[in-house]
Amino acid sequence: MALSRLGEPGHAGIRDAVRQWGAVEALDRFVRGAATMNGVHPQRFCAEQLAQDRRHGEQLGARVLIPGDTDWPRQLADLEAPPLCLWARGPLDLAAATERSVALVGARSATAYGTQIAADLAVGLSERGFAIVSGGAYGIDAAAHRGALAVGGDTVAVMAGGIDRLYPASHTQLLGTIATHGAVLTEQPPGVAPIGSRFLSRNRIIAALSNGTVVVEASLRSGSLNTAGHAERIARPVGAVPGPITSMQSAGCHEFIRDMRAVLVTDAGEVADLMGTLGLDLAPVKRGEHRQTDDLEPDDRTLFEALPVRGHADVATLSRAVNSTDRAVRAGLGRLELRGLAETDGGHGWRKARDNTRGSTGPGR
Amino acid sequence: MALSRLGEPGHAGIRDAVRQWGAVEALDRFVRGAATMNGVHPQRFCAEQLAQDRRHGEQLGARVLIPGDTDWPRQLADLEAPPLCLWARGPLDLAAATERSVALVGARSATAYGTQIAADLAVGLSERGFAIVSGGAYGIDAAAHRGALAVGGDTVAVMAGGIDRLYPASHTQLLGTIATHGAVLTEQPPGVAPIGSRFLSRNRIIAALSNGTVVVEASLRSGSLNTAGHAERIARPVGAVPGPITSMQSAGCHEFIRDMRAVLVTDAGEVADLMGTLGLDLAPVKRGEHRQTDDLEPDDRTLFEALPVRGHADVATLSRAVNSTDRAVRAGLGRLELRGLAETDGGHGWRKARDNTRGSTGPGR
Repeated sequence: MALSRLGEPGHAGIRDAVRQWGAVEALDRFVRGAATMNGVHPQRFCAEQLAQDRRHGEQLGARVLIPGDTDWPRQLADLEAPPLCLWARGPLDLAAATERSVALVGARSATAYGTQIAADLAVGLSERGFAIVSGGAYGIDAAAHRGALAVGGDTVAVMAGGIDRLYPASHTQLLGTIATHGAVLTEQPPGVAPIGSRFLSRNRIIAALSNGTVVVEASLRSGSLNTAGHAERIARPVGAVPGPITSMQSAGCHEFIRDMRAVLVTDAGEVADLMGTLGLDLAPVKRGEHRQTDDLEPDDRTLFEALPVRGHADVATLSRAVNSTDRAVRAGLGRLELRGLAETDGGHGWRKARDNTRGSTGPGR
Repeated sequence: MALSRLGEPGHAGIRDAVRQWGAVEALDRFVRGAATMNGVHPQRFCAEQLAQDRRHGEQLGARVLIPGDTDWPRQLADLEAPPLCLWARGPLDLAAATERSVALVGARSATAYGTQIAADLAVGLSERGFAIVSGGAYGIDAAAHRGALAVGGDTVAVMAGGIDRLYPASHTQLLGTIATHGAVLTEQPPGVAPIGSRFLSRNRIIAALSNGTVVVEASLRSGSLNTAGHAERIARPVGAVPGPITSMQSAGCHEFIRDMRAVLVTDAGEVADLMGTLGLDLAPVKRGEHRQTDDLEPDDRTLFEALPVRGHADVATLSRAVNSTDRAVRAGLGRLELRGLAETDGGHGWRKARDNTRGSTGPGR
């Protein structure tokens, strides 16, 4: 807690000091001045401040997690610079919930298409037992949280400022609901303002908490691509939802798919396939309906297609139509009749069997 | 010409016979009965028919191309079973025009989105000197041909039936225009009806004529995926245009991109990059605008973001906002001022420099 006051999140020097000496001794060395480095401000350490932070947190019902706590999410260790501690509100056991989780992120200025997709994915993934991790922002983030809440799924909102400085203000109610049913958390001490660069360091926590990250809508400059980049760096799968190429809000997703930095995903099943337990979450391959005519030899298929649906055609007419001989056509009609694809009027007339007219692929494409 | 009467296109036996003995002797052997095989019908050979086909072709202004002719497209040799000959209408030198060409294919039941994209791509590719190859069908095909014609580009329509059986009938005018300015061609002899399986063998010619194939819109069962499959088999690049995941007409494209059987493309530049001459047609990497603040050190960037746009803030306020010290903030303000990102009111107040307010990334994302 105290160390997180001395510098911005992800400060490499503080990270190294903690790795080398442990948090308590590292703090002691910084405060004593035994260790000094740029961006580390020991003068910020203040016992009263620390006590006040604790009281403040308790008033907000926030608990503090540090590495080693039973519900500390161990996967955060994959980060180059893991958070030093987390202030968390909400009943969710973070370690358990995030074991099976997906980060749904995207543009704040999302389109109706994007927010609809984000909500649908959150619902589908919640129903598959995934916790939904996001940043509580406008647009895609909010739609993802709401989708999870709507079906009683677990959801985690990671903040860029102090646990007492929830952002955006207009999401106070949404974030309150998440704090009641899921978890709202941050690595920033109380009082710290949520400003630009802190959203970027916050993004690394969203990426590291979840099994993988899906970008639902993103312009070419969207910060959600920064979250996807963090997921990439720690070798977590990244998915991206395509959209109209005329929508700038999908341009970032398309660029990531083009660069093969993201897998194109179109539904919750495909996301589960990408992020979930291998085998358990395998997405079914999408197929058009199988038709009986698919199995026909080319000549028989041509013949079937030449058969009228209404009325009847005789062998001579058919052999002209398919550019073949009467003998070959008679043989073909026999095979089609056996498969129940052709039927005769009892005389010389032949037609497609009534219940198989949809077997035809129609003229072309 | 005569051989193409004896069996359906792509007949392996006829192909082998021609490779072994040459077309003339192969025909002679089939007709003499010296060579016999399933699906080859020597009794269809008929000198009068042949003469009549020739007259018929001449009346339609159709010429017949055979392998070895100067304007025979040599790339057709990449096919497992190249066409035996081509009936062609139109002034276009096929060999020259298709040296730099793209096949634009897709659903007949295209959406307004798809047809708009197909036309835009055809225009952009024509302007880059690519000939547009397609099948003259409803939807994407027609939009692609029209796009090329609109800017005076070369376009080639490959038919599934005889040169006298242009399909669909309602495209008589469009196909007539293509036959006047570009080329309409088929491997089928005159009189042959355009029926289902012939569209599938026709598709291999569309794929082989062009440097690569782009699928603009395709349902999971679309025949345009069959064309893309042909391109794949002869190692030609395949592109696919994404669309809303809510549109079944884009589902085939998305599946091909997911399977990495197609590269996601969003504009003519990216298609040219994929299909064109390496280097010459390199597509520019899409980027958001570069901002001056991108180059700032994290601490300075945080400070810049904390600066007000309206009004002014003093050093004490700023150091609280960024959770730093007055000394560090004063140094940071100096650096920002040098870059023209911060300005002072001459007293103790600081703000973002007026002409650099858009340098801010705003709160997050």
